[in-house]
Amino acid sequence: MNVLITGAAGFLGQRLARALVERGHLQSSAGIAEPIEELCLFDVNPPAALARDSVVDSSSDPHRRSAPIRIRAVTGDIRDSALMRSLIDERTTAVFHLSAIVSGTAEADFDLGWSINLDGSRALLEACRQARARARVVFTSSVAVYGGALPVLVTDQTPLNPQSSYGAQKAMAELLLTDYNRKGFVDGRILRLPTISVRPGRPNGAASSFASGMIREPLAGEAAQCPVAAQTRLWLLSPVRAIEALVHGHELSPAAIGIARAINLPGLSLTAAEMAQALTRVAGTEVAARIEWQPDERVERIVASWPAAWDMSRALGLGFRPDADFDSVIRAYQSER
Amino acid sequence: MNVLITGAAGFLGQRLARALVERGHLQSSAGIAEPIEELCLFDVNPPAALARDSVVDSSSDPHRRSAPIRIRAVTGDIRDSALMRSLIDERTTAVFHLSAIVSGTAEADFDLGWSINLDGSRALLEACRQARARARVVFTSSVAVYGGALPVLVTDQTPLNPQSSYGAQKAMAELLLTDYNRKGFVDGRILRLPTISVRPGRPNGAASSFASGMIREPLAGEAAQCPVAAQTRLWLLSPVRAIEALVHGHELSPAAIGIARAINLPGLSLTAAEMAQALTRVAGTEVAARIEWQPDERVERIVASWPAAWDMSRALGLGFRPDADFDSVIRAYQSER
Repeated sequence: MNVLITGAAGFLGQRLARALVERGHLQSSAGIAEPIEELCLFDVNPPAALARDSVVDSSSDPHRRSAPIRIRAVTGDIRDSALMRSLIDERTTAVFHLSAIVSGTAEADFDLGWSINLDGSRALLEACRQARARARVVFTSSVAVYGGALPVLVTDQTPLNPQSSYGAQKAMAELLLTDYNRKGFVDGRILRLPTISVRPGRPNGAASSFASGMIREPLAGEAAQCPVAAQTRLWLLSPVRAIEALVHGHELSPAAIGIARAINLPGLSLTAAEMAQALTRVAGTEVAARIEWQPDERVERIVASWPAAWDMSRALGLGFRPDADFDSVIRAYQSER
Repeated sequence: MNVLITGAAGFLGQRLARALVERGHLQSSAGIAEPIEELCLFDVNPPAALARDSVVDSSSDPHRRSAPIRIRAVTGDIRDSALMRSLIDERTTAVFHLSAIVSGTAEADFDLGWSINLDGSRALLEACRQARARARVVFTSSVAVYGGALPVLVTDQTPLNPQSSYGAQKAMAELLLTDYNRKGFVDGRILRLPTISVRPGRPNGAASSFASGMIREPLAGEAAQCPVAAQTRLWLLSPVRAIEALVHGHELSPAAIGIARAINLPGLSLTAAEMAQALTRVAGTEVAARIEWQPDERVERIVASWPAAWDMSRALGLGFRPDADFDSVIRAYQSER
């Protein structure tokens, strides 16, 4: 089978690509493990090391090693319908749609957010429809589809009520994917991701960027701003569990998912203060003291509209796994560096 | 002020145009009654009698009569962004967005439904944004945004879960309008209409077309098919109340509506059998016997996914009015002919 990752130069995209190369296979639509022949890494930015056109041996386990995987790196605009059609054909039975304008940027640049997050998703889905392969499409949605007067625990029955352009765009892409799924054009799976922490690298335009920065920068000896109040509660998932979830989301049978294609992934519910306390326990008082509490009304308004926790029972029943605790998430981040 | 009606050649559009000419004024954004100077009637189909370029005297009541209203009729494609911009300027402070591909047609023609119902709505909203008049935009949404396992009584807290392309398109246009409203580009009002009955004229491509046909055709001495089971329950609103609701939806102050821009309009909950019984009471057994019960799985599937009733408390509190009973709705239809 051929696999496409959009947003492949992003943080999750790069990790997913490595995970798929390591794994070497994915479930086919017939429900059997099928070797990955080609992995297409698509992004608006030039690809990282793995992403250059190459052939790599899959799987470090020699018993599971199959034929080499062709890596095809393509840089372009996801709104380009002809380009998207050229990347997806009848052998493309797995698509991971990760590319998006992040929340803070989508709020600041209204036109860019709508055109990438809505039109881009539509160009991708339309290319899948034309290829007639009924690809399994794993789409990453977000806590940002919720908002307004939320219950303490968000459930599958909580109405979507986005309070940001990013959230509205994600909610609309969910509806679009669900209709393409209902029509049989794709086999869609929507994974609503908690805020990912701890991301390596530099801050980005996401309103939630601080949720990684306030851990990452202090560990690197730098100061970091926390722009939300200490009591603001976040719903968090580690990068390791996020990648596991993307692969698991693909592997699930359509029957296991049923009609409701969106799944709220498990997470950890912590206040910003509790995140700082975890950092103190893992790295000491001096490190945690590098967090500067500087409320930013613009960020606080977006982040406070997101749910602080949601019901995990459906996701757990489907086999998705949460992190044990945030201390271990910070330790895992340290051990990776 | 200038007023734009999209879908102005449609059944509701024509009636709304007549109602606005009769009325002669609408609330400005400042909350005061302002005379309508120009009424732009836009549709893909050529306009009806009123709609030809003309100047008409508003209001039959001489005490309320103001300057004549210019009627501007424009035939075109709502997806044409440049055309939409040419229709909307800084004086266009009232927009009634009624144009849509109806449910049955949107289900049968996937591309047409998405492009008119989503892209068309977007072109319209974008033209409003560019005109910088923060127009009050009244958008007609539908029972079709709901679906799946519904509670007996749908409330404002029931999640949107469309089970048709039309429903998905209406739900997405709601999200889009809500974000344009949140950003201050428009003052949006979403009215979720029950199924309108009794519509005059001929059957159309709406899955709910039979809800008028099974009353209208027997009254005209013709046979009519009812494609749903006798026990299938519908949520109904008369044309008279629908037009009242559109005008009232415009007149409400932004503060009265609050953050949740979508309002479920009041309706009557009747089974198809109860509709036939009302016809018997009003017009006799012989007329009602012209209803042929011929279940059509395609129509039944769509209609049965819609709510049979929803909580009216918010709409009633905002001053929207339901019909008294379906017998009087049929009698009102008869008296209009």
